[in-house]
Amino acid sequence: MLLQRIGRGSAVRVAKQQVFANKGGLRYQSSGNRPFLTKNKIVNISSLFIGLGLGIYAKIRWSSHDELQVFPEPSTTPLNSVGPPKYGSDADLQKCVVELRELLGKEYVRDSEAEIEHHTDNGFNPSKPQPEHKPRIIIYPGSTEQVSDAMKIISRYNIPIVPFSGGTSLEGHTYSTRQGIVMNTSRMNQIVKVNIDDLDAVLQAGVGWQQLNEHLSELEGAENLMLGCDCGPGAHVCGMVSTNASGIGATRYGSMVSNIISVTAVLADGTVIKTKRRPRKSSAGYNLTGLLAGSEGTLAIITEVTVKLQVRPAHETVVLVQFPTLKDSTNAVASLFKSGIQLNAVEFLDAGMMQCINYSDLTSKKFENYPTLLFKIAGLNKIVVTEYVKEVKKVCQNSNCRMFEFARDEVEAEELFSVRKNALYVMLDYGYNEISEDAKMWVTDFAVPLSRLASTLEQADKLMEAYPLKHLTLGHVGDGNFHLDIFYLPEQYEMCKRVVDKLAVLALENEGTCSGEHGIGFGKRAMLEDELGEATISAMRKLKMALDPKRLLNPDKVFKIDPLDSSKD
Amino acid sequence: MLLQRIGRGSAVRVAKQQVFANKGGLRYQSSGNRPFLTKNKIVNISSLFIGLGLGIYAKIRWSSHDELQVFPEPSTTPLNSVGPPKYGSDADLQKCVVELRELLGKEYVRDSEAEIEHHTDNGFNPSKPQPEHKPRIIIYPGSTEQVSDAMKIISRYNIPIVPFSGGTSLEGHTYSTRQGIVMNTSRMNQIVKVNIDDLDAVLQAGVGWQQLNEHLSELEGAENLMLGCDCGPGAHVCGMVSTNASGIGATRYGSMVSNIISVTAVLADGTVIKTKRRPRKSSAGYNLTGLLAGSEGTLAIITEVTVKLQVRPAHETVVLVQFPTLKDSTNAVASLFKSGIQLNAVEFLDAGMMQCINYSDLTSKKFENYPTLLFKIAGLNKIVVTEYVKEVKKVCQNSNCRMFEFARDEVEAEELFSVRKNALYVMLDYGYNEISEDAKMWVTDFAVPLSRLASTLEQADKLMEAYPLKHLTLGHVGDGNFHLDIFYLPEQYEMCKRVVDKLAVLALENEGTCSGEHGIGFGKRAMLEDELGEATISAMRKLKMALDPKRLLNPDKVFKIDPLDSSKD
Repeated sequence: MLLQRIGRGSAVRVAKQQVFANKGGLRYQSSGNRPFLTKNKIVNISSLFIGLGLGIYAKIRWSSHDELQVFPEPSTTPLNSVGPPKYGSDADLQKCVVELRELLGKEYVRDSEAEIEHHTDNGFNPSKPQPEHKPRIIIYPGSTEQVSDAMKIISRYNIPIVPFSGGTSLEGHTYSTRQGIVMNTSRMNQIVKVNIDDLDAVLQAGVGWQQLNEHLSELEGAENLMLGCDCGPGAHVCGMVSTNASGIGATRYGSMVSNIISVTAVLADGTVIKTKRRPRKSSAGYNLTGLLAGSEGTLAIITEVTVKLQVRPAHETVVLVQFPTLKDSTNAVASLFKSGIQLNAVEFLDAGMMQCINYSDLTSKKFENYPTLLFKIAGLNKIVVTEYVKEVKKVCQNSNCRMFEFARDEVEAEELFSVRKNALYVMLDYGYNEISEDAKMWVTDFAVPLSRLASTLEQADKLMEAYPLKHLTLGHVGDGNFHLDIFYLPEQYEMCKRVVDKLAVLALENEGTCSGEHGIGFGKRAMLEDELGEATISAMRKLKMALDPKRLLNPDKVFKIDPLDSSKD
Repeated sequence: MLLQRIGRGSAVRVAKQQVFANKGGLRYQSSGNRPFLTKNKIVNISSLFIGLGLGIYAKIRWSSHDELQVFPEPSTTPLNSVGPPKYGSDADLQKCVVELRELLGKEYVRDSEAEIEHHTDNGFNPSKPQPEHKPRIIIYPGSTEQVSDAMKIISRYNIPIVPFSGGTSLEGHTYSTRQGIVMNTSRMNQIVKVNIDDLDAVLQAGVGWQQLNEHLSELEGAENLMLGCDCGPGAHVCGMVSTNASGIGATRYGSMVSNIISVTAVLADGTVIKTKRRPRKSSAGYNLTGLLAGSEGTLAIITEVTVKLQVRPAHETVVLVQFPTLKDSTNAVASLFKSGIQLNAVEFLDAGMMQCINYSDLTSKKFENYPTLLFKIAGLNKIVVTEYVKEVKKVCQNSNCRMFEFARDEVEAEELFSVRKNALYVMLDYGYNEISEDAKMWVTDFAVPLSRLASTLEQADKLMEAYPLKHLTLGHVGDGNFHLDIFYLPEQYEMCKRVVDKLAVLALENEGTCSGEHGIGFGKRAMLEDELGEATISAMRKLKMALDPKRLLNPDKVFKIDPLDSSKD
């Protein structure tokens, strides 16, 4: 406070002198104009005494807006350069809840055992929450205005807050590490507007991607429109933006950041921002849309999203190709990309995965247990698609493919692609029946440059040989993104964790990333620091501290924010 | 300082108590753990006295890293909440230059009249620099390390710095509003690596997009690769990222932000960050790549960029279609998009523009003076492209097209597209010969949702009728982005400025933006605030203050950073 007051005093003097000296121009200040705090020892000390008085005065009215803001000089915020966050006390939480009940209505401020449980852990997170990682209160705002008003109250009491909507994320994004409030935006599920001629739609935070696609399929003139991202069932658009999610469609339409036009969000102090207007292309100011995509609820609470809509292909077929080796399969993909052929899906299943699929009753066809690629090939009409299928076949044959099968109609296409569509259920089924009823699956999410994919997967298989853990690999290879999924028994949890850490090292050695599409959350913070280095993480931390200085928004996610945080992740 | 020290003192106590109370867990602090500054008046005052001593102590060693960073509480930084920036004096600049000469060598620290002139104004900026907007010194670093070392020196002396490379930007991005140093990165022009199998390339900041494409055309296996963005000739990759530039290819490949994988950049204090690794898809931490794209050199100095490479279409043709009305032409584009047809270019030229083209000798063919669309249609082979041309023709006929001409071979394709390619020269030629040898052209850069494009352009034409200023309109209509280019005589400058401001209002009334691809720079800051509102701009300003608290990097661009800045723009 003191410093700011002193800063302000000098700033005012500088201002006057500058106007006088430069007639409002933007020239240099003469050194006489520099803050006298840095110059004259006597003035320095006296100013500190003045500051002393002002400091006490300022304490009384800190949050007032006419304070001058002063920022730390370094461009980054190393973890050890901040003190631990100072959150409100239990009493503060209770007072906060009283005000939230008034704002939202009793029924939307909940603390039943069931609500707490539901918002503690979705069960899919490989990283386990600590026993004390439980929320105290769940609130359900109904509008951007209510989110804003709620955040004004919450920040006044310094209560940590975890945004939550679909609750399908896989990296512990919604753990309540600080035992605060969970803000569930699933009530905000209105499709505000579909602009068919502009191929965009304005959605509230809690709209699910499946809900949107169903709505479009029933909307006149929009029947053939869809969202480009098709990630986990149940995911809501706000969470998809927050984790920059994608899915099978990403190889064609990009991940979520490429499928949004603008975002309405509420900052930690309740300020509402809208990042862009509705044109599909814009260079108007900082790319806040891009910054919020992937920020995992640590910078703002997303309340509305304008998404791009994609057109379902007029004609599409599915091709299934099997290769003698992994390398042959990735060579085929590289050749297809280099020839400029655009594919609507490029999915990889390893030999073990094919074995499980054959083992299951979920797909009618049986296949050889070879590395397999599934392509979706789309175009204007059958003539066009046939031309592309011919070309894809030629390329795959040059890469020694053993089997090349393509669907002759929609039914066959659906049947072939069901091999990939059912993969998750096939895996769970296999684990339950073949390994143990208690078997769990650790879903990893690495990505490497395509040229490194084959060798990375081969090294990964080799690494796994040393452990008694069965794994299967699926990949969105069009993006170099693969999910090496490991079965483990509860007692093998620590071993599995060690393996995953080694796989992360392997991915990084191959210029890769620890997250292709699931995000970092709570469990992969250490991997992220290994991946990007301390300087880059410290730059992220400085942005976090700037927008959320009290560290209220989804604390402890993406990177550490507390020097006392002793977690190894 | 004082406050930080006190904060730190309490933080340490909190830390100890927390460890004691919670065994290092992440629970709430009891209210007893809250910073005692806010609690106990006696402790408060005594702590301020302790602080007094520490404050003086701290002054001596401010930049040391074990200070605790303290951030302003609001999530935004309104302009009036900061004092004016405090830049170094002339003496500081001189000392800084001495150190820079030692670092870079005399020949790379220049202040000749010619150098100053070249870096003052490229002559294409509609907004005019003030007479005093001149740099003092131009430096030419040769590597990321030199940029980092230079920034350490420059930030120590608080000298404002303007990044410069191709110098082709159009919105006054490189004006030296603070008469400081220009950092010219054009010496850093090495193509570091081309990864053909991954379709990416690692480029130093000063590599031009044409230079890259020429290099690829001569590189074995990369002959058919290119950068997706084809903006102004001479543009360098760092500037293209900084303004999120695009061009004709954007309708197919997106603007620059969609064509980059990662960025190496130097922050204000010299810290070097690399935003991502090389996988094409990643959800690893904050999207700093996206944040730097479009930040116009105000957040960091870009020194290296990993770009995606696109594959030149195996077969491509050009179609030129003319319509009786503007509305018919945009209806055609909307119908094509809704049918899911992917076009490699969708360019619009208004009737006046066609008149100029017919008038010029630059294109061999003559056309009617009607609103005209130019499409690039690409595909695997002639069979595929022919199918698409048929479909495009059908759609255009449904939108009442009067004339539909498509190229039968590459020569015809080039000839047809030369209509668009030569547009700029045609316009300049027209202005010089038909208006006045002194005629200048004001290039605007608005974008609106496609459904609003026709009405916006009609309203714009109507608005222009009231003024004695000839205008022509070109558009990347695939993105709703149009350049309404206005001819004016030097004495009509103020009138033209008023017209452009009215056009901006019109664009905003149609949900549009004041910048589709050129950025904001110095001249469109007021438009940007009208477009996004004060809260969003203040959030951007807080990010700026966080990464560049001394406001050294490209000051006064994108938005105001100085409460004394009295400019109307």
